[in-house]
Formats: sequence, structure tokens, C-alpha cells
Amino acid sequence: MPFSNQAPSPVPVAEAPDADHCEVFSPDAEALARARARAVDEATAQALADTFRVLGDPTRVRILDAVADGELCVCDLAALVGQSESSVSHHLRLLRTMRLVRARRDGRMVYYSLDDDHITGLLAQGREHVQEARR
Amino acid sequence: MPFSNQAPSPVPVAEAPDADHCEVFSPDAEALARARARAVDEATAQALADTFRVLGDPTRVRILDAVADGELCVCDLAALVGQSESSVSHHLRLLRTMRLVRARRDGRMVYYSLDDDHITGLLAQGREHVQEARR
Repeated sequence: MPFSNQAPSPVPVAEAPDADHCEVFSPDAEALARARARAVDEATAQALADTFRVLGDPTRVRILDAVADGELCVCDLAALVGQSESSVSHHLRLLRTMRLVRARRDGRMVYYSLDDDHITGLLAQGREHVQEARR
Repeated sequence: MPFSNQAPSPVPVAEAPDADHCEVFSPDAEALARARARAVDEATAQALADTFRVLGDPTRVRILDAVADGELCVCDLAALVGQSESSVSHHLRLLRTMRLVRARRDGRMVYYSLDDDHITGLLAQGREHVQEARR
């Protein structure tokens, strides 16, 4: 087998410009125990990730942002984001499944609003992070 | 062309159990103007969606949650989430790109912490939403 005796060229990790990990494997038992004790459980981490993933679409962000200020119907939302009612309905169904919006029927119209106050908080914190990251 | 003269069966939208849109197309000009005036711009909506999408992974949620309480190194994080250092490094690179975590080198170790306070807020609001949605 050619080359089998050749050692790989050593890569000086510490000097690599994008070195992003420790040079030694040395987990800190105390920090780890502390982190483990207060860590989010796996089911909650998954539920959080599912929620964030649904928010990870610019049209859905615009829909949520729009209804944060007062309820709107699918027609209004379609006109606002410049997409078909059918496309907006699809997004709204996903948002309802994740309990991000709620629907209210009023005669022949259906109005959408945020499902709870934490969605407003999520959008506000997200927006402040984005503004900070741009600086 | 067979069937071309057959009209599709009428579907009574109002009576459909999952009717989620208005029976008439009637955007509310006033509500729309108000929503347009304060709507998030497209670039911000995209940046928000990009941020949320990166958060849409349970391992990345667990990493962020862990470093929210104090800085940790890749070794600690790998032990905590039960993944290889290389896999955790990959997640951390993405989180750094989105300015969600920052790295600090201390001798032979590299420690990670949250990049700004809004990430803590994002996680907290997300967690409260998830708890509320479970009720």
C-alpha cells in the first residue's frame, strides 16, 4: 500500500486563522455538571427548534409581523406580501399548527392574529439581534 | 377532450371543517394601508428568517441554551450534547456566522458565549411560547 507509512502533515491548529476549537481535549467537569443541571430537555429543545424552523421563512415572518399590529384576513395578507391567497393560506396553516397564529371567523371573513404575546417578543428580540449584528 | 364540459363539483367553503379563508375577496384598504406603513422591510424579514432558520435545529438550540448561562468550550459542548467535537464545531461556525455566539481564546482553549443579550430573550420567549402551546 503506497503512502501508508507517510504520516499526515501536521497542521498547527493554534496558528490556523480560523482555529475555533481547543488544542487539548479537556472538558471542565464542574462547568459541565452545572450546564447539565440546568440544560433544556431534549423534547423542549426539539419543540423550540420546530418553532424556530417555521419562523425561518421571510413570508411567514412578514405575515406574523403584519398581524402583530392587529388582525388581518387572508385577502389583506395576500395583498400585503404580494402572493396568492392559496400560498398565504398554506403559510397560515403551518403557523396555526405551531400555535403561532389563531383564526377568528366573523360572518364571511376569517381574521388572523398572533396566538400569544410571546410571538411579539420573539419578533422584537429577533429584530434587535439582526440590527445589532449589522453594526 | 373528454370531461372538458364537466364543471368541478362545488365545494361549500363555508361549511368545510377547515375553512380558513374568507368566502369573499374583500381586502380592507384601511387595514392594508396601516399594515403597509409599519411593515418590516424585505431585507429585514429575510435576515430575521435566516436567523430563525439557524435556530431551527435542536442541537443548536441546546448549544445556545448551554452557553447562555456561562461560556463553555467545544469539548464541554460535545460532552453535553453527546456529539463529536467536529459536529459541534460545525454548528458553532454557523452560529458564529449568524452572530449568535462569539469565541474567546484563552491559552490553549477556546470558549463560546452568546453574542448579544437578545439571544437569551429569543430563547426565553420561545420557551414560554412552547410551554403555552402545550397547554
